[in-house]
Amino acid sequence: MTVRIAVVGGGAAGMAAASRAKRLLGDKAEVTVFEKGSWISFALCGTPYYIGCRVPTLDMLVHYPLEEFTRRRGINVKLKTIVTEVDPGARQLRYRSLATGEEGVYEYDYLVLATGARPRVPGEWLRYRNVYTLHSLGDADRLRATVVRNDVKRVVVIGGGYTGVEAAENLARLGRRVILIHSGEWLLNKMLDHDMAGELMERAQNAGIELVLGHRVTDIEGAGDIAASVLLDNGERIDGDVFLAASGIEPNTTLAEQMGLKIGETGAVWTNERMETSIKDVYAVGDVAETRDLVTGGRVWWPFATAANKMGFVAGTNIAGGDAVFPGVVRTSAMGAFGLYVAATGLNEEEARRHGFDAVAVKVKAPTKARYMGEPGEILLKVVADAETGKLLGAQAVSSDPSSFWRVNVIASLIWRGATVWDLFSVDVGYWPGLNPVWDPLTIAARLFFRKLGTKP
Amino acid sequence: MTVRIAVVGGGAAGMAAASRAKRLLGDKAEVTVFEKGSWISFALCGTPYYIGCRVPTLDMLVHYPLEEFTRRRGINVKLKTIVTEVDPGARQLRYRSLATGEEGVYEYDYLVLATGARPRVPGEWLRYRNVYTLHSLGDADRLRATVVRNDVKRVVVIGGGYTGVEAAENLARLGRRVILIHSGEWLLNKMLDHDMAGELMERAQNAGIELVLGHRVTDIEGAGDIAASVLLDNGERIDGDVFLAASGIEPNTTLAEQMGLKIGETGAVWTNERMETSIKDVYAVGDVAETRDLVTGGRVWWPFATAANKMGFVAGTNIAGGDAVFPGVVRTSAMGAFGLYVAATGLNEEEARRHGFDAVAVKVKAPTKARYMGEPGEILLKVVADAETGKLLGAQAVSSDPSSFWRVNVIASLIWRGATVWDLFSVDVGYWPGLNPVWDPLTIAARLFFRKLGTKP
Repeated sequence: MTVRIAVVGGGAAGMAAASRAKRLLGDKAEVTVFEKGSWISFALCGTPYYIGCRVPTLDMLVHYPLEEFTRRRGINVKLKTIVTEVDPGARQLRYRSLATGEEGVYEYDYLVLATGARPRVPGEWLRYRNVYTLHSLGDADRLRATVVRNDVKRVVVIGGGYTGVEAAENLARLGRRVILIHSGEWLLNKMLDHDMAGELMERAQNAGIELVLGHRVTDIEGAGDIAASVLLDNGERIDGDVFLAASGIEPNTTLAEQMGLKIGETGAVWTNERMETSIKDVYAVGDVAETRDLVTGGRVWWPFATAANKMGFVAGTNIAGGDAVFPGVVRTSAMGAFGLYVAATGLNEEEARRHGFDAVAVKVKAPTKARYMGEPGEILLKVVADAETGKLLGAQAVSSDPSSFWRVNVIASLIWRGATVWDLFSVDVGYWPGLNPVWDPLTIAARLFFRKLGTKP
Repeated sequence: MTVRIAVVGGGAAGMAAASRAKRLLGDKAEVTVFEKGSWISFALCGTPYYIGCRVPTLDMLVHYPLEEFTRRRGINVKLKTIVTEVDPGARQLRYRSLATGEEGVYEYDYLVLATGARPRVPGEWLRYRNVYTLHSLGDADRLRATVVRNDVKRVVVIGGGYTGVEAAENLARLGRRVILIHSGEWLLNKMLDHDMAGELMERAQNAGIELVLGHRVTDIEGAGDIAASVLLDNGERIDGDVFLAASGIEPNTTLAEQMGLKIGETGAVWTNERMETSIKDVYAVGDVAETRDLVTGGRVWWPFATAANKMGFVAGTNIAGGDAVFPGVVRTSAMGAFGLYVAATGLNEEEARRHGFDAVAVKVKAPTKARYMGEPGEILLKVVADAETGKLLGAQAVSSDPSSFWRVNVIASLIWRGATVWDLFSVDVGYWPGLNPVWDPLTIAARLFFRKLGTKP
C-alpha cells in the first residue's frame, strides 16, 4: 500500500514537507507537488538583488534544480499546475495545467497546503502593464526586464517594509530615480521603533531615494493600460514610469477556504504545533499557516522563510508517522540595505506596550570590536524587557557590521528560553578583540537595565 | 565616615571593581588601587597583535588612560607598587613602591584581590635574557623590541594554546622563522576536539610555522644568560634566537595564601557568586578567582577578560551595599589566527565524556550564507549534547567568517538556559540571505541530532 501525499505549493515549506516525508517513507510513499509557477524551491528573499543585477540569473535563486527533487529524491512535480478544488471528504483534489489546459484528479491520503502568501494589492492597480508586484521569480524577471530599459527614469515604490526598502535600494543602484511611498511614519515601522530607524532613512536618502512617509496611496491613475501616477491620501500626485506595489502580503487562503479549513484569528490557516489543520490528515505550512507567538502567547502570522522550512520539515515528519513540533516563533527578522544590517526579535517597545507589558527599554550605541584591532563599526542596539519580571521581550539592532544580526540572535535565543535582563548580563558570550569589545554591547545593555530594575531579580 | 576600599591589581577585574564601587559610593568611599606594573586597565588579549605590529603603540592596549580613573572617577592609583603583606585581622596591608622603594601601610574596610595570573614557567628558564613570557604590556614591549632586530631569525614558541598560536602567527608575519612546540597532539587541544583543529594547523603551516606537536620541552640550554636551544622529551634539540614560553598560566595566589584565603579545588581563590572569599569583606575577582562551571556544576578556573570584568562589577556592586551575582560561566572562548575565527563553548566531546556524560556529537560543514549573495564562507560546526536528556553541552566552530563566533554564542546562550537539541532546531534565529543560509548550520546540526535522539523530547 503506497501512501499518497499531495503538496499544494512548491516553495520552501512545500518542498521541505515533500522532501522530508519522501525521505522517511521512501518507496512506501508517492509524493506529488502541484506548483502554479515555473519554479520550485525558490528564494523569494533574493528577488530584490536580482532586480539590482547583483544576482545575475534567475536560476541562482532556485535552491535546488528540479532534477534534485524529481530524479534524486523521487518526488513528482507538476509545474504550472493549479489546484482548483479540494474535496477533503473524498480526499481528492482537482488540478489544471496552465500550460496545456489538461485537467486531472489526484487522490491523496495526506494533503499539505503550502499555498504561501500573495501581494495585498487592489486588483484594479494590476490592470496597468507598468504596475508590478514582487512575490515570485516571474515577478522579479518581468520587473528587471522593464527597469533596465533606458526610458525608465522614475520608479515609484509603494511600501516601506523589507521588500519595498530592499527593492528601492536595488532600483536606485540601477541608476533610476526612486520615490518610496510608505504609509508608516518611518521605514520598517513594523519591525523597528521610530528611534531605531534614523540611520536607515538617512542612508536611503543619501542613496538618492526620495522618501514620502506617512501617506497612503489611494489610487493609481493612467491612460489605457499604462499607469502615470499615484494619488496620495493628501491629494498629491506622484508621477512615475514604473510602479512597484510592495505594500504588504496576505496569506493565500483561497483553497483553504474552499476546503473549509479553519482560518485563525490572524487570517491565516489555523494549525497546531504538529502543523495539523482543523481537518484530519491535512497540514498547512509556510506563509499560508499561522503559528504561536511565544513572547505574547497569542497567535501570529509570520511569513518568513526559515519558519516555513521548519514547518515543512515538521509536517513531513509527522505525515511519515514521526512526532515533531514547531512550537512557534519569537519573531526574529533581518534585512540588509544601504550597507546596514538591520535585525529585530520579539516585541519592539511600542508593541510591548500595546500588548499590555510594563515595558522598559534601553539603548546602546557602542563600537562593535576593540578599537586597537582596526576601525570598529558601530552598533545601535535597543533591548526591551518587562519591568515587573525582568523578562526579555525583544531587541532591535542596526549596524554596518553583521554582528547586529548575531547579537539579536543571541537575545532571540535567550527570549526563546524565557531569560531575563540578569541573564543578559551574566550569559557567557565570548570575547576576542577582533570580534567584540570586552564589554559587549549586550552586556552594556544589561547594565543599563540594572539602573532601572536592580542588579538582581 | 569614609569607606576605604583597597584593590590589589589594576587589570580588567580590579579596575572594574574600583570603578563600580566608587561610582555607587561617590565621596563616601576612598578607593585605592595598587598595581605592580606601569599600566592599568590593560588589554592583554591584544599583546600578540602588538608584537606583530598590527597594534602600533602600547598605549592603544590601555582601555582608558590613567587620568580617566584618577581625575574623572576619583580613584587613587599607585603604579609600580606591590602589596607585600595583608593582615586581614587588622584590615591593613603593607605596600612598597618598586620605583622609589617607599613603603607604607594602608588600612581598609574592604579588600578586592585582583592579582591575576602569572605564566607557568620554570624559574631557571627565565635566567636567560632571550627567553620571554607574554603576560603583561611590558612583556609585549620587550619581546617586540627584540624580535624586530635583524639578527633574530628563529623564534621558538613553547605552547599551542591561544597565546602561543596568536603569538606564533604574529611572529611569522614579521618574517621570522617560527617553530611552535606544543605538548598536545593538536593546537588548541583544550578548546577543540582533534577533529576540529585541522584547518587551523594547515593554515599555520602554510604561514611558514613549523609545528612540533605531542612533545614537551624539558629544558632550555644556553651559554651564560643566552639560551640557544630547547630540549624535548624525546631528546631532540631545537635551536632558536628568541624563545617565548607560552605554555600556560596559573592563578597568582601568593598574596591570597599569605592572607590565609581559602584556595579552591582549581588552585584559584575560592569565591561565592557574590565574589566574596572565605574572609569577610575580602573579595577576589578576575584571573585569581575561581567560579562555577554551569555545565558540569563543578568549580572552574576561567581566566578570561569578560568574566574578569563582570566579576569586578559584581564585587564593586556588593561592596557598595548592592546585591549582584556572577553565577559562573559556560566557558565560551574565542580566538583568531591565520584568517580563521575559532570559538567554543561548554564541553567539547572529549571533555563531556570525561565528565561522565553520555555525549553525542554532530558535525556540520556548511556555507555561511546564501550562495547567490556572493561567494560564501564555510563553517565547520560541532555541537555536543547529552544523549539521555538532549541537553546541549557544548559547541565548537571554525570559519573564515566571524559568524562562527556568533553561532557559538547562540549555543552558549541556549546552554546558559539549559536548552536541548530540540530548542536548537526551533529557536528563532533570523535569516537574511546575505548573512546565513535559509537552513542555518545551527538548524542543520539540530536535524543531525534528530537522527540520533529523535525529533521530540
